[in-house]
Amino acid sequence: MNTQDKPLLAGIEAGGTKFVLAVGHSPTEVIARHTIPTRSPETTLVEAGDWFSQHGKLGGLGIASFGPIELDRSNPRWGCITDTPKASWEGCDIAGYFADRLNVPVGFDTDVNGAAMAEYYFGAGKGASSLAYVTVGTGIGGGLVIDGRPVHGAAHPEMGHIFPRRHPSDREFAGICPRHGDCLEGLASGPAIKARWSASLSDLPAEHEAHEIIARYLAQLCHSLVAMSAAEVIVLGGGVLKTGGLLDLVKKQASELNAGYFPGQSKHQIVLPGLGDDAGITGALLLAAAD
Amino acid sequence: MNTQDKPLLAGIEAGGTKFVLAVGHSPTEVIARHTIPTRSPETTLVEAGDWFSQHGKLGGLGIASFGPIELDRSNPRWGCITDTPKASWEGCDIAGYFADRLNVPVGFDTDVNGAAMAEYYFGAGKGASSLAYVTVGTGIGGGLVIDGRPVHGAAHPEMGHIFPRRHPSDREFAGICPRHGDCLEGLASGPAIKARWSASLSDLPAEHEAHEIIARYLAQLCHSLVAMSAAEVIVLGGGVLKTGGLLDLVKKQASELNAGYFPGQSKHQIVLPGLGDDAGITGALLLAAAD
Repeated sequence: MNTQDKPLLAGIEAGGTKFVLAVGHSPTEVIARHTIPTRSPETTLVEAGDWFSQHGKLGGLGIASFGPIELDRSNPRWGCITDTPKASWEGCDIAGYFADRLNVPVGFDTDVNGAAMAEYYFGAGKGASSLAYVTVGTGIGGGLVIDGRPVHGAAHPEMGHIFPRRHPSDREFAGICPRHGDCLEGLASGPAIKARWSASLSDLPAEHEAHEIIARYLAQLCHSLVAMSAAEVIVLGGGVLKTGGLLDLVKKQASELNAGYFPGQSKHQIVLPGLGDDAGITGALLLAAAD
Repeated sequence: MNTQDKPLLAGIEAGGTKFVLAVGHSPTEVIARHTIPTRSPETTLVEAGDWFSQHGKLGGLGIASFGPIELDRSNPRWGCITDTPKASWEGCDIAGYFADRLNVPVGFDTDVNGAAMAEYYFGAGKGASSLAYVTVGTGIGGGLVIDGRPVHGAAHPEMGHIFPRRHPSDREFAGICPRHGDCLEGLASGPAIKARWSASLSDLPAEHEAHEIIARYLAQLCHSLVAMSAAEVIVLGGGVLKTGGLLDLVKKQASELNAGYFPGQSKHQIVLPGLGDDAGITGALLLAAAD
């Protein structure tokens, strides 16, 4: 039978502000998609389930979710959101709801691991041995794919919570991370930028010091990622990276930090998402196909 | 046939100051070992080859080597030391020499990836999903094992070259890394400690601020490792970690940096090597067995 006869794959990119839903013949052959706002779990999950139910019997569902989440299949809480600041979602068994409602096998991972998988297989990482996907927006998070598989470890990476060195022109700001203050997320996320300069980075003129400061923090993330994992491709996504010129500033500063040291550096790349804003939903569909 | 009838496995822990050689029935059944000082490649490799030749036909050789090294099997320089400051070793085809001399298949990886593999399978990491092994001695290096395999990426990790935040009581010292100045290796390696305090850490009294300062830098490495890779077990080895009380200080400071944030934190451990000083040579024998 050709791909048109197989049951459709379904995917959910589950974010803190919206859920993106899609069905397709494969991760790159989407035939319908729909976006709903994130409200209470009950409202949001029922509405998503209703939409999927229109598409007949599904072959599998992948969920790329905001976190933290439980990824250990041997843990009874597998498939749940764990201790999120979004209080009503804490403990929500998001994978279990859809497994029951749609009666399909469910693949489940973080939103950024999903996006990393999508970029690795279909985007900026084609042919690379490893790839990290970092989103810089409301928060900062990262996923890591090594030899074709997402890295889980004890749970999943939380790359936004490293402590970069403070930029000399940015010593006074306390940072906005409720847990860590001036960790990377507390210094360089969209809300951290607004807290200092009352504007988003893309609204500040190119000569404003904010560009240099934020690039310096993101360059330290890239440098540490390569030092820790020798990641070949680092994809920087999310709203803040839509600022013109920022990627080039990050690359320049990462190169200065490295000072020509890392072995295999000719393979290292820092790039924007090859799939643009579709990395997340493509990743969700990949998780469906992989399960 | 029982294991006693099979050809012996051979291993080399190739370090900057000494080569440890061993043969055994398995990575944990060593029947002979020998240590020689590292001199020129010619002298050192010939002497090592002579020792192995006494042990009859070998089944395979694993080399866990100081670096940087070329690990890409598709690269003609696979098995070579690359751009090391030890000038006479630059470009040395260490794997090729032994493949020819001993006519055996050769497994090849970094010394710290070898030690990480040994700790993962036979030491402190038994049962864990991922493990990092960090050595803090003449230099600082780290290896990472995820789902049972060493992480290579673009080449191999170089964990000693992250930039930790400076400790408030240690702002003046410029650091001794020839490339980066005050990177982790430039601040917390054995020679960096001696450069500041004219003594090794274990010779400084427990109340000396050096303990707190060095622990703070190593705790930042542990914190960043968990943020990047969610590594379950972090093994801290090398001469500096033989300082009484240092491991506990690192654990305390890493816990303060984390502030209860990382998911799966009940699985995280920071420990001394389960195999003690044998992690490296056990890893070399594992690389022989795996090839």
